[in-house]
Amino acid sequence: MLVVKKFGGTSVANKERIYNVANRCIEEYKKGNDVVVVLSAMGKYTDELIEKAQDINENPPKREMDMLLTIGEQMSVSLMAMAMAKLGVPAVSLNGFQVAMHTTSVYGNARLKRIDCERIKNELEQRKIVIVTGFQGINKYDDYTTLGRGGSDTTAVALAAALHADKCEIYTDVDGVYTADPRKVKSARKINEITYDEMLELATLGAGVLHNRSVELAKKYGVELVVRSSLNTNEGTVVKEGKKMEKMIVSGVASDSDAARVAVVGLKDEPGVAFKLFNALAKNNINVDMILQSVGRHGTKDISFTCSSLDADDAARIINDSMEFESIDVNKEVSKVSIVGAGMQSNAGVAAKMFEALYDANINIRQISTSEIRVTVLIDAKNTERAMNAIHDKFDLGEN
Amino acid sequence: MLVVKKFGGTSVANKERIYNVANRCIEEYKKGNDVVVVLSAMGKYTDELIEKAQDINENPPKREMDMLLTIGEQMSVSLMAMAMAKLGVPAVSLNGFQVAMHTTSVYGNARLKRIDCERIKNELEQRKIVIVTGFQGINKYDDYTTLGRGGSDTTAVALAAALHADKCEIYTDVDGVYTADPRKVKSARKINEITYDEMLELATLGAGVLHNRSVELAKKYGVELVVRSSLNTNEGTVVKEGKKMEKMIVSGVASDSDAARVAVVGLKDEPGVAFKLFNALAKNNINVDMILQSVGRHGTKDISFTCSSLDADDAARIINDSMEFESIDVNKEVSKVSIVGAGMQSNAGVAAKMFEALYDANINIRQISTSEIRVTVLIDAKNTERAMNAIHDKFDLGEN
Repeated sequence: MLVVKKFGGTSVANKERIYNVANRCIEEYKKGNDVVVVLSAMGKYTDELIEKAQDINENPPKREMDMLLTIGEQMSVSLMAMAMAKLGVPAVSLNGFQVAMHTTSVYGNARLKRIDCERIKNELEQRKIVIVTGFQGINKYDDYTTLGRGGSDTTAVALAAALHADKCEIYTDVDGVYTADPRKVKSARKINEITYDEMLELATLGAGVLHNRSVELAKKYGVELVVRSSLNTNEGTVVKEGKKMEKMIVSGVASDSDAARVAVVGLKDEPGVAFKLFNALAKNNINVDMILQSVGRHGTKDISFTCSSLDADDAARIINDSMEFESIDVNKEVSKVSIVGAGMQSNAGVAAKMFEALYDANINIRQISTSEIRVTVLIDAKNTERAMNAIHDKFDLGEN
Repeated sequence: MLVVKKFGGTSVANKERIYNVANRCIEEYKKGNDVVVVLSAMGKYTDELIEKAQDINENPPKREMDMLLTIGEQMSVSLMAMAMAKLGVPAVSLNGFQVAMHTTSVYGNARLKRIDCERIKNELEQRKIVIVTGFQGINKYDDYTTLGRGGSDTTAVALAAALHADKCEIYTDVDGVYTADPRKVKSARKINEITYDEMLELATLGAGVLHNRSVELAKKYGVELVVRSSLNTNEGTVVKEGKKMEKMIVSGVASDSDAARVAVVGLKDEPGVAFKLFNALAKNNINVDMILQSVGRHGTKDISFTCSSLDADDAARIINDSMEFESIDVNKEVSKVSIVGAGMQSNAGVAAKMFEALYDANINIRQISTSEIRVTVLIDAKNTERAMNAIHDKFDLGEN
């Protein structure tokens, strides 16, 4: 069996943790399995490197930024190989050039295009544990690129797909995927199995366990993912194609308090207004969500939407520069609360049940958006935890 | 004109120094010249990385050690490119894969075999300053290697040779090559010109300014070297083929207090004893120097030699295990003092003059060795500075 194991920065933050990871990988190896390990940079090292760069140039060229950041993973993988050697197991570390990990050209946010597996296969054939730098790749100019946030998850899934691995385990500091954030909802329960689509909705909603690009990739290539803790041996959550899960209507509740709501009042009521507005935002790389359009007074219309609170002020400025309207309002004190579940598609009344939970808790809904397997409401940020608990209880998610 | 400039770790130890180097390179660039910059790791960063490795595994695999150490130079070059960008000059950093720097396979002490210049030439044609990682290369397995002590000097000279550069400037924290170490000999004077061979003898003697492999390489390819300070604009020392320098008999005095003397008394007086002894040392990678063999009492012979004081105890142990003899003595309180000069070859009495200086200073000579352009004496370590000054004065080296 070929297993790809990915460990994040906290899992390799110091000597003790590096040895913990080394031992876990060796345990797998000693079962006779082939083991490929993907690592992130140690602890907060990437942040330290960013600081170093900022100190030299507050707006460094992105190509050079990637040249600098890739050293973080190279440090992790070489130290890990040394730890495994100390434990008597042959291991070899490989960076983006050595694998090689071919990506698109965009520095800081590249996409993986193609992975050469020859070197890895050769090393595995010699019964070595292969330790690969996550997050990084090389583009057609032979320059280092990085894959953006959550990049190491993507590296692991892509490697698992390219190597036709039997399993891809994503190790993190929680036990798996939960029905809700356990820090916010006490009765939250670990989910044993979840579909790619559900996981995608949760990832997009900022549940934080897996990056959505890695889930998309896993879905595309049918890579079975396991999300589990690097600190204990609990079973974790399996992410795979949905079949047996129909009976479960709602699998989890997620919240995103990084949201802001922008409301534009008194736009002209004529064709092309929405296009003009959202095109201006898209050109500036601002992602929007939960768009709502309503008829205003005197032949005008109002448009509101949500975006990341980091982008909200930029969004308002761009709209100011490109549109005519009466007034604009930015509210960063909002949050999105969502229920996700593959079973929703064939079950009427799920949304109504969620709204009922919020009504019972006397929480006002400002905006609503839905997908086939998700219902999201926008509420005041201060009510987030109360809303999550109310919904969690309403759907009995704490019970197996 | 194409100029290769090499800066050591102290020259890029912090933000201020990085900008100092960036400005010096930009000055050259703005004259219309092509500039290739070779950098070492910042300050003591390589030592920090070695410590990190030792903490994980006190005897790390050399391949992984090189994988770890190469990140030091990658950090320097990317930060330098960021500094130049901030100063408005296009620059690009390149590592051992990107150049590419092909070396032999030996990790930790590889030799450069071949440098691909295409990428560098392309970048220079686009009028960019090219910043290259010193010290590192890749072997036939596409693994990182490092070039050993003084490796960045070697990288710079090799690049200058491969690119047919007009000049190779080695920047350091002293003004150039001196007739003696200015910290030990007050009247020491900077040498304006020196031959490759003289520089080689000085480098081998631990004068510390240039590594001897880089001087050998410069001699082989006729690369004109300039050794100068990164902290001021003084002229420095030019190292080139010797022609006009015949009149100068002795160009400098050097000392090496890292020496130890090992004396083996009462070896059997039969053929093959010296071979057996030095073969045992060579097998254990112990370099020896200043070998002296004399006839002992009762049909025995004595052999003494010098080696690095770090190796002395190992040497004694190895000899103990492989030879029969009466007694062995290790003395670490010795130092080597040498005079170097291309003019010696055709001048009788140079050695005698050196011995006279030591006699006048009442300093006992324990052992002597000579090459065509060098005379070395072994003396008690406590007399080192007094001996250097006496010799320096005797040859009037302080005068132009």
